[in-house]
Amino acid sequence: MTERNKPMNLDQLERPVLLVDKSKVLRNVDRMARKARASAVLLRPHFKTHQSADLAEWMRSLGIHKITVSSVDMAEYFGRNGWDDITIAVPVNIHQIPRINELAKAIDLNVIIDSELAAFRLREGITVPLNVWIEIDTGDHRTGISAERTDLILKVAATLSRAPALRFRGLLAHDGHSYETRGAGDILRIHESSRASLQDVKRALEEAGYHQLSVSVGDTPSCTIVDRFLPPIDEIRPGNFVFYDVQQKSLGICRDEDIAVAIACPIISKNPEWKELVIYGGSVHVSRESLSLPSGKPFFGQIARLDEDQAAWTAPIPGAYLSALSQEHGKVAGPEDFIRRMEIGDTLIILPIHSCITASLYSEYHVLNGAVLGKFRA
Amino acid sequence: MTERNKPMNLDQLERPVLLVDKSKVLRNVDRMARKARASAVLLRPHFKTHQSADLAEWMRSLGIHKITVSSVDMAEYFGRNGWDDITIAVPVNIHQIPRINELAKAIDLNVIIDSELAAFRLREGITVPLNVWIEIDTGDHRTGISAERTDLILKVAATLSRAPALRFRGLLAHDGHSYETRGAGDILRIHESSRASLQDVKRALEEAGYHQLSVSVGDTPSCTIVDRFLPPIDEIRPGNFVFYDVQQKSLGICRDEDIAVAIACPIISKNPEWKELVIYGGSVHVSRESLSLPSGKPFFGQIARLDEDQAAWTAPIPGAYLSALSQEHGKVAGPEDFIRRMEIGDTLIILPIHSCITASLYSEYHVLNGAVLGKFRA
Repeated sequence: MTERNKPMNLDQLERPVLLVDKSKVLRNVDRMARKARASAVLLRPHFKTHQSADLAEWMRSLGIHKITVSSVDMAEYFGRNGWDDITIAVPVNIHQIPRINELAKAIDLNVIIDSELAAFRLREGITVPLNVWIEIDTGDHRTGISAERTDLILKVAATLSRAPALRFRGLLAHDGHSYETRGAGDILRIHESSRASLQDVKRALEEAGYHQLSVSVGDTPSCTIVDRFLPPIDEIRPGNFVFYDVQQKSLGICRDEDIAVAIACPIISKNPEWKELVIYGGSVHVSRESLSLPSGKPFFGQIARLDEDQAAWTAPIPGAYLSALSQEHGKVAGPEDFIRRMEIGDTLIILPIHSCITASLYSEYHVLNGAVLGKFRA
Repeated sequence: MTERNKPMNLDQLERPVLLVDKSKVLRNVDRMARKARASAVLLRPHFKTHQSADLAEWMRSLGIHKITVSSVDMAEYFGRNGWDDITIAVPVNIHQIPRINELAKAIDLNVIIDSELAAFRLREGITVPLNVWIEIDTGDHRTGISAERTDLILKVAATLSRAPALRFRGLLAHDGHSYETRGAGDILRIHESSRASLQDVKRALEEAGYHQLSVSVGDTPSCTIVDRFLPPIDEIRPGNFVFYDVQQKSLGICRDEDIAVAIACPIISKNPEWKELVIYGGSVHVSRESLSLPSGKPFFGQIARLDEDQAAWTAPIPGAYLSALSQEHGKVAGPEDFIRRMEIGDTLIILPIHSCITASLYSEYHVLNGAVLGKFRA
């Protein structure tokens, strides 16, 4: 743990900084960890959201010991930082097999594949014990073998089973399409349909002689909405829940007070007609992730202010939005009295649309109250 | 110049890499430099596009000696790398005045302001000679004092003039709204209207006794389309023209063969129904900058392939697009015969929608044929 103490006056910002509220992170993680325990499933959170070995220690203190990441580079980073059971939840890039061998010497490594070709390449290239999961497409249609293609799934399983170094561990799915829904009802339907598909695939594999397979699912909307995880689910891999964000709030998945990261930006320009503010904070600091206002216009974040003691940020200011982004500037629109009160040099807080992507743009977090957390950056 | 030689086989990519085609950069820069010389204006290119001290040396070899950047951090980086006349073309963040003082001791530094408040803060805080420009809003409505508000412009000029360390250098405008047009006709109209506004403001200042003011404009669409820069323009600051991109092509500003950066990504998944490919390359590698297809659906890049000798990439493949992005995955849609020919492990080339933002996501460039260029990263 390398939390440095570097007090920062957030009222006089030299540049945009990424803030994290530790109390919210702990509450978000503790809530999910309790739910996983109640269902007797393993919580293997996706660390692509925060990408910080320092923040990861907060999660370890809440009982997290196995994790998910989204690249070999990120797995190496967390491996160096004391995490010894890691799943890389993106289909293997066959040109990284030598590095996967190296990493699998040091830690318990899990990888996923969704093709016979990758199974053959692993079989011929992997020389140390490696856990392999078959990714199943249960409706998101990004990666994974369609749950209906049990013929192909069985072929891949057979290829894996003929390799001494490979251990066929189970089935992994990601219901990314839960992010595209209109709320809880749709999300539950997706989760149930996905669970039923995975149950069918697992049974087909059992009939073919593959036993003791695990089933891993995990997207923040489903994992937040579902009360109890039922068989065949053994493991959940949500990531975003650590921070949540405006998108999750718009899905009804979290409340304002659950959003645990934000960007603090100084105001650098104010339209003399008092209609808009401009912050030092553009698409390179916030990202272009957007949602739509009722008018159909996009917005790139909600706006809050710091409490006086800088220990928390306020609820979002109604009607105030990050309305436009260029590379280093952001425009803030809002109610006239709010705009009028703000002045060049003041700090605004931006609540991000998609916290994972926004956090990926920074090399450190500033914890409210002073500590700085180191972070992986690709 | 620290170009390292690190040969990379682009056919076996471990991760997404940012490629640059040196011959295209040199041609793009040379064309703009000739045009500036023909109009007797200074080309002060915006280095926020490439952010590389190594690449900057290519531009120095074509006669570039004065530059523009978009942050104090970036100015410090290029200052350390031998650039001694720099404009920071974003309104001063008043909390960076101590660092501006430090930098202005070492180099000829130009800053911009668009408020009386910033003028007062500079007057009270700046202790070493500093060039100050007033930013004029000629229609983009992001930052700058409206060209119609000569009353306010004169007040700011007067405040600057009473500070011994400050030198009021001139008027600076950025017609960012040229990016939102439908092509050359609109862009020329914006440029002419902006020039007329700046002429009016300059005259009003001359009548008030401010002489020898310079006028700086510069956005890539206008600077590319305009044949000859007329008074009062003394300086142009385009940035994107070094690389261009799919957005500029869609505006009719450049051709396919002018686009000088791209991302190379390995294919990691292929839908067995041959409808889509998935690359290792997501929003953290490409950015969410998008354009719309005729159908109204967004796309995030065009697709090309490498030539066999890896010395160039092909023209974009008609009908092939980066159709969806998650954090580390990208989906590629395209004609069935193209998708069928591609296999897991193959390399695809992504031509970016907005090259400045895509390049900002990387810490180095791989020049086609082997050298690696270092890069600033905020």
